[in-house]
Amino acid sequence: MDLGNLGIQPNSDPNGSKDHVSHMALDIGGTLIKLVYFSRNCECSVEDKEDKPSNDSLLVSNDHKKFQLLKGSFHFAKFETSKINDCLEFIQCNQLHFSGCKHHGDPTNDKCIIKATGGGAHKYGDLFKEKLGICLDKEDEMDCLVAGANFLLKAVHEEAFTYINGQKEFLQIDHDDLYPYLLVNIGSGVSMIKVDGDSKFERVSGTNVGGGTFWGLGRLLTKCKTFDELLELSHQGNNRVIDMLVGDIYGGMDYAKIGLSSMTIASSFGKAISDNKELEDYKPEDISRSLLRMISNNIGQISYLNALRFGLKRIFFGGFFIRGHAYTMDTISVAVNFWSKGEAKALFLRHEGFLGALGAFVSYEKHGFDDLMVRQLVHQSPVSAQDGGYKIHGSQNGELKDNESIECSVYVS
Amino acid sequence: MDLGNLGIQPNSDPNGSKDHVSHMALDIGGTLIKLVYFSRNCECSVEDKEDKPSNDSLLVSNDHKKFQLLKGSFHFAKFETSKINDCLEFIQCNQLHFSGCKHHGDPTNDKCIIKATGGGAHKYGDLFKEKLGICLDKEDEMDCLVAGANFLLKAVHEEAFTYINGQKEFLQIDHDDLYPYLLVNIGSGVSMIKVDGDSKFERVSGTNVGGGTFWGLGRLLTKCKTFDELLELSHQGNNRVIDMLVGDIYGGMDYAKIGLSSMTIASSFGKAISDNKELEDYKPEDISRSLLRMISNNIGQISYLNALRFGLKRIFFGGFFIRGHAYTMDTISVAVNFWSKGEAKALFLRHEGFLGALGAFVSYEKHGFDDLMVRQLVHQSPVSAQDGGYKIHGSQNGELKDNESIECSVYVS
Repeated sequence: MDLGNLGIQPNSDPNGSKDHVSHMALDIGGTLIKLVYFSRNCECSVEDKEDKPSNDSLLVSNDHKKFQLLKGSFHFAKFETSKINDCLEFIQCNQLHFSGCKHHGDPTNDKCIIKATGGGAHKYGDLFKEKLGICLDKEDEMDCLVAGANFLLKAVHEEAFTYINGQKEFLQIDHDDLYPYLLVNIGSGVSMIKVDGDSKFERVSGTNVGGGTFWGLGRLLTKCKTFDELLELSHQGNNRVIDMLVGDIYGGMDYAKIGLSSMTIASSFGKAISDNKELEDYKPEDISRSLLRMISNNIGQISYLNALRFGLKRIFFGGFFIRGHAYTMDTISVAVNFWSKGEAKALFLRHEGFLGALGAFVSYEKHGFDDLMVRQLVHQSPVSAQDGGYKIHGSQNGELKDNESIECSVYVS
Repeated sequence: MDLGNLGIQPNSDPNGSKDHVSHMALDIGGTLIKLVYFSRNCECSVEDKEDKPSNDSLLVSNDHKKFQLLKGSFHFAKFETSKINDCLEFIQCNQLHFSGCKHHGDPTNDKCIIKATGGGAHKYGDLFKEKLGICLDKEDEMDCLVAGANFLLKAVHEEAFTYINGQKEFLQIDHDDLYPYLLVNIGSGVSMIKVDGDSKFERVSGTNVGGGTFWGLGRLLTKCKTFDELLELSHQGNNRVIDMLVGDIYGGMDYAKIGLSSMTIASSFGKAISDNKELEDYKPEDISRSLLRMISNNIGQISYLNALRFGLKRIFFGGFFIRGHAYTMDTISVAVNFWSKGEAKALFLRHEGFLGALGAFVSYEKHGFDDLMVRQLVHQSPVSAQDGGYKIHGSQNGELKDNESIECSVYVS
């Protein structure tokens, strides 16, 4: 996961001409730092675009204005929080730290402000100031998660999808029918937020069994060097080697009376109680698979129980734990479907890992930042996935790769 | 946990006279076999006991009968399911396998029937027949858990207690006010049952993160040889070494806005993501503590969410995972209190591990077994903790040790 060494040069294009980085925002979590920035590669197009009436309350409506079409890219990058120097180096190499205050001309100026969220925005504020001369402007973590999710769900085409029987199905959600929903952000830990409107939400629950648990326990048990390696291993694993199934207890039979098939997991890691095997005797693949299933299923169950409390039918799962990983999404989907008896639905987000960072990004607008470059993204027209605006064109297959930049067109006033 | 070797001689008293074993019942789970039997040591007292009107619907009321007072003991034993031969040997040594059909005189007779529940009653039926010539009469697991819990809550003095800030407080529950409640049985896996009446219940949920997960993962991570050793280790452990706390992410600060103190666990095992430490670098004590806390807290949370669904204020926790262990009970209590904001209460049962076995035991009655010895326990008077009957006198300090026998008096018709 040493992404700082990937040598990404996001603000140079194939022709060697410099893109203009206009913003950067950070989400510094317990395990990962997520970084989002926008770069424009031309600003030649000016379109006369008339505002249409919009129900999109995220953005203020302006009547009959000229809008400039900026073409550019959203860029995404992540780093391990424990290797924060890689992140600092990446920012410095790519001169992203000037993006917040370019017009001042002085990179050491205190007014060089970068929006940041996550606990690390508090913890590492001094480090960013010392090393890069930038001031992290702290945004509340839950505010940013919700703002990021709402932004994606409203502005991005084919953002949300279900994952059932190995099949992705994209859902275009009507803005009028978006709320309420449950947002489950699976980072190191898990937050569960009931979202009732653009800035109307409540963190109703959470669990400390999250991505940090998968990676922490997984490292101890398998000696994997990276989170992705651990995830990859789970592909080839068989959880039945370590999990105790209903059939293991019932001599191969179902416990039909209460609807448990012989293949249902009765006890995760329950077979490891056997005296005959030590840790070394288990394949890391099987351990990874059991662990992934245990944690995904547990999160799915607790999420559903919370959705049930508030009568929420849609549960959006975000956070870097999922990583577009088929088995994770499948387990969560099956768990939500099983416990809700088909009543609730698990939905996933293509930009799952960047909710907080995107939320910090859009918060530049909220605070009416007096920076020209910021205004370009702030005073944009009412946007929707249909009529342009903040539309992000993803890659063809709907998969988001690490550090992939996404071409986009942004209308600004 | 090799209890078969403890050399318990339950059916001999200090004077060398044989006690009369009248019943045995088994609960054969994925990890443990629980065994309960009653032995009487005298049957001299005959009391003229008049039935009082009773609301206790567990037992049929009989008017104006003579009742015989049997003095004896309930005995409890447990064995690892993987060492089932220890259990068979124990039964044979103590001639418990004759208890179900003593009057037939022929121990190999097919009619030698022992009540048994748990998945193993299905899986090991043939083994019991082959080795001991006894036929396991299978009782449904959920039926038995509920019957066992109701039996204990109605008949046993000082059975249920709360555990708050290290203090046990016994609750005598009014029979009229017992239902509804949530029964959470933590065995290898966890079952959550809404109990509305004597035989009126529904398994509403469960989780595969249970006692088997604690012991299975614990064995792999610590190389402990027994469950009790692993539990014991957790006493001296410090979970903060491995768990990622809110303060670790927020630079020592609380995340006060959403009510999370800096000491709250954000991610169980989240600190183990660090590259600098391998499994060997962590103390088994700390691992055990983190694991116990993760699992207890998770069970407490899911239990509360299910209690909330059905408006249940009381949650009784049973199953062999708890083992009267202070830290486990404390974590579960704190979790239920935290998530319910003080609205719901965690209650524990002194005979927590033997619900299923006791339920199988009392099921002899339900089926009107035509065995004299059985009838002695079947047609007893309506009982309560106040007026004798199935009263079980526990040891002074309210702790139940493994294999401890409990003196009791039983009125029989």
